[in-house]
Amino acid sequence: MSKKLGIGLVGFGTVGTGVWETLNRNFKLISDRSSVQVEIMRIAVRDINKSRPEGAPNDRLTTDWSEVVHDAQVDIVVELIGGTTTAFDIVAASLRAGKPVVTGNKALLAERGKELFALSLEFDTPIHFEAAVAGGIPIIKTMQDSFVGNRIQSMVGIINGTSNYILERMTDAGLAYEEALGEAQQLGYAEADPTLDVNGWDAAHKAILLATLAYGFTIDPEDVYVRGIEMVRGIDIDFAKRLGFVVKLLCVVREHDNGDIEIRTQPSFIPGSHVLSSVNGVFNAVAVQGDAAGESLFYGRGAGKDPTASSVVADIVEAALGLGHEGGHRGFLPYQKGGKLMCIEDTETPYYVRFDVNDEPGVIAKIAHALADAGIGISGTHSPVNPDNPDADFVDMVFQLHTCRFGLLKETLKKIEQLGCVNSRPVVFRIENL
Amino acid sequence: MSKKLGIGLVGFGTVGTGVWETLNRNFKLISDRSSVQVEIMRIAVRDINKSRPEGAPNDRLTTDWSEVVHDAQVDIVVELIGGTTTAFDIVAASLRAGKPVVTGNKALLAERGKELFALSLEFDTPIHFEAAVAGGIPIIKTMQDSFVGNRIQSMVGIINGTSNYILERMTDAGLAYEEALGEAQQLGYAEADPTLDVNGWDAAHKAILLATLAYGFTIDPEDVYVRGIEMVRGIDIDFAKRLGFVVKLLCVVREHDNGDIEIRTQPSFIPGSHVLSSVNGVFNAVAVQGDAAGESLFYGRGAGKDPTASSVVADIVEAALGLGHEGGHRGFLPYQKGGKLMCIEDTETPYYVRFDVNDEPGVIAKIAHALADAGIGISGTHSPVNPDNPDADFVDMVFQLHTCRFGLLKETLKKIEQLGCVNSRPVVFRIENL
Repeated sequence: MSKKLGIGLVGFGTVGTGVWETLNRNFKLISDRSSVQVEIMRIAVRDINKSRPEGAPNDRLTTDWSEVVHDAQVDIVVELIGGTTTAFDIVAASLRAGKPVVTGNKALLAERGKELFALSLEFDTPIHFEAAVAGGIPIIKTMQDSFVGNRIQSMVGIINGTSNYILERMTDAGLAYEEALGEAQQLGYAEADPTLDVNGWDAAHKAILLATLAYGFTIDPEDVYVRGIEMVRGIDIDFAKRLGFVVKLLCVVREHDNGDIEIRTQPSFIPGSHVLSSVNGVFNAVAVQGDAAGESLFYGRGAGKDPTASSVVADIVEAALGLGHEGGHRGFLPYQKGGKLMCIEDTETPYYVRFDVNDEPGVIAKIAHALADAGIGISGTHSPVNPDNPDADFVDMVFQLHTCRFGLLKETLKKIEQLGCVNSRPVVFRIENL
Repeated sequence: MSKKLGIGLVGFGTVGTGVWETLNRNFKLISDRSSVQVEIMRIAVRDINKSRPEGAPNDRLTTDWSEVVHDAQVDIVVELIGGTTTAFDIVAASLRAGKPVVTGNKALLAERGKELFALSLEFDTPIHFEAAVAGGIPIIKTMQDSFVGNRIQSMVGIINGTSNYILERMTDAGLAYEEALGEAQQLGYAEADPTLDVNGWDAAHKAILLATLAYGFTIDPEDVYVRGIEMVRGIDIDFAKRLGFVVKLLCVVREHDNGDIEIRTQPSFIPGSHVLSSVNGVFNAVAVQGDAAGESLFYGRGAGKDPTASSVVADIVEAALGLGHEGGHRGFLPYQKGGKLMCIEDTETPYYVRFDVNDEPGVIAKIAHALADAGIGISGTHSPVNPDNPDADFVDMVFQLHTCRFGLLKETLKKIEQLGCVNSRPVVFRIENL
């Protein structure tokens, strides 16, 4: 009864090595459990002479990915090179060849999912992408299969481990952003080029995929509001602590009553009492609210060789089990032509706003007056407990604001900037009602 | 492309009603997502005249379950009556008829899984049981599919909401066991007959299923160590707090290096800093350690109409997608002939032991001496901060003990009982190193 299938790997870096090791280490277990025997038949690499782990199948290496895709012994193609150009060609070629694809490439699917899912439909060949979101946490399968009967009311996730580590170190050790980033790079938690991690886009790509799974349509990244952690400063982390919050890079996806989808990624204040506030280090977590399942939370290792390999291997087995079955594959396909994304200006939360103000009488009154004119309620104002320089001419002043439209807040802050009592652009964090 | 399939429900109580409501409410969503259209064609009930929710398909009711199973319009049978006798007959008859079964019946599968999985194999027809463990949390699919590439090192779960609620109320509100149980019954969290919840067997049945998924063989419940929460007293909860622990009804499943499987259910002390300690109320959580995925945690509503319906509906869709595919179904089948369960006497943890001792000099020395003779280390001794009656002739004395074999502890405690300074059987809790 057991199926024997050949795997082609494109990319043999950290995750690729992890996949190879996991398939070897647990070969018998996997085949006992699934009646599927998979073997890596061909591997495309950039440099064939690079040193590999002991026992690596060096005789199966090639530098030409199309040799992998078109190898007659390869039934399933695993794309692990990242990027959105060559990776696109590899995935497209595999689908055209009727070979199921397993990928962990969130950027590729978030940026070019529309084209690839169309090919997946056309060639009746699935794309599996559990490894693209939250490493070893099976959130894709959960959304696609386990919550198939749920209208998804919201998903809130901490899904970039690098940012989470940096924010944690800034919070717990009082490091400056640059120090914490340097430490993350030294420990291997951040790439040499950490841009996509710290600018929010890695997390945003994942949030786009989660929203696509939940609501059935592909989303143009251009339409998604994304802010990274580069603008987070120690002073705001300290204020957050004082007010009972923790700063986390948060992805928020929410369906509103009118069917509009809110989707945004930014550093936010979350209550220190909420379980997400204790997701530390490189761990990831996604909280899902479904109309039947209620509140759920999925927590685990969001990156790294073995956790990501765990998801790739699960997808390989899923692809293998699906092979040869007529009548429509079981991979994900968008099931809605489109949907309406909420304009970021229309989204509503409470806010934390920090103003750099002239230290003179009447400033608070002026700001409060402008907020009141706009109909924005103030739930509290706070000044630093220990300003660096008590004799300075300007000082940081924090306003905690009640829920209002983000657009209204932005307009109002612009007016306040013109009052002449504010020295730089106000710093805004959303306060998330979790 | 869309498949139309008929569902037969056996049982139309709380969960059955939830399934019916969820399938109706989200019919379009489910069929859009999965290309499966399911309709409940026949429902077996105990009392045909009982009042049902508005719109219920009263014309499809019968009191004869075999009419449901053998109805030509029924492709998939959903068993929701509980118990291990009639439910067994229903599941067996469905499998023999080649109709996939969806069930949330943990007792049935834990007690008689061996027979039913054999029928599932013989008739090439799957049994789906996501709803049997942890309500709306997709832990079955995770273990079976998402972690297929992982050797499962351990699973630690809080998987009985009733017990968890009772222990929480004893902890936070200082209620006595009987008061907390009464409250849980009033709130509908506990059945009129709460036996299986409070004696640990509901949780143990679920742990047996998790172990079967992880290690591939069915387990005789006779071989499993199970203790309930009936013996938990306020004094031990207070001591736990003082020592930095929380008392939880915990299921522990662990594979040891020699391949032996440890499986046990009992109220345990867990560190107040561990995430499982904050799983409160009727929520469930399962922490899984896999050799590839690392540490993961799955949290959500472990019972109730809608969360359980969420899992039943996911299984219905899974069953529907699998129907008509040749070459082996994708439901779970044991893949090992058997395995070795660890004898409970050989399991090792640290312990909390409370002695009711005579309040006289030398008692601690006697007990400490007996423990030392057995080679059991003491990490601390504690007496009550505020004994009820400072002039009493006896007093509670707590020993925190280092890790040792449970069998050795039991023998040693028997010797201590014979010393004449202990007034009743010592109270033992395991301290779990999470």
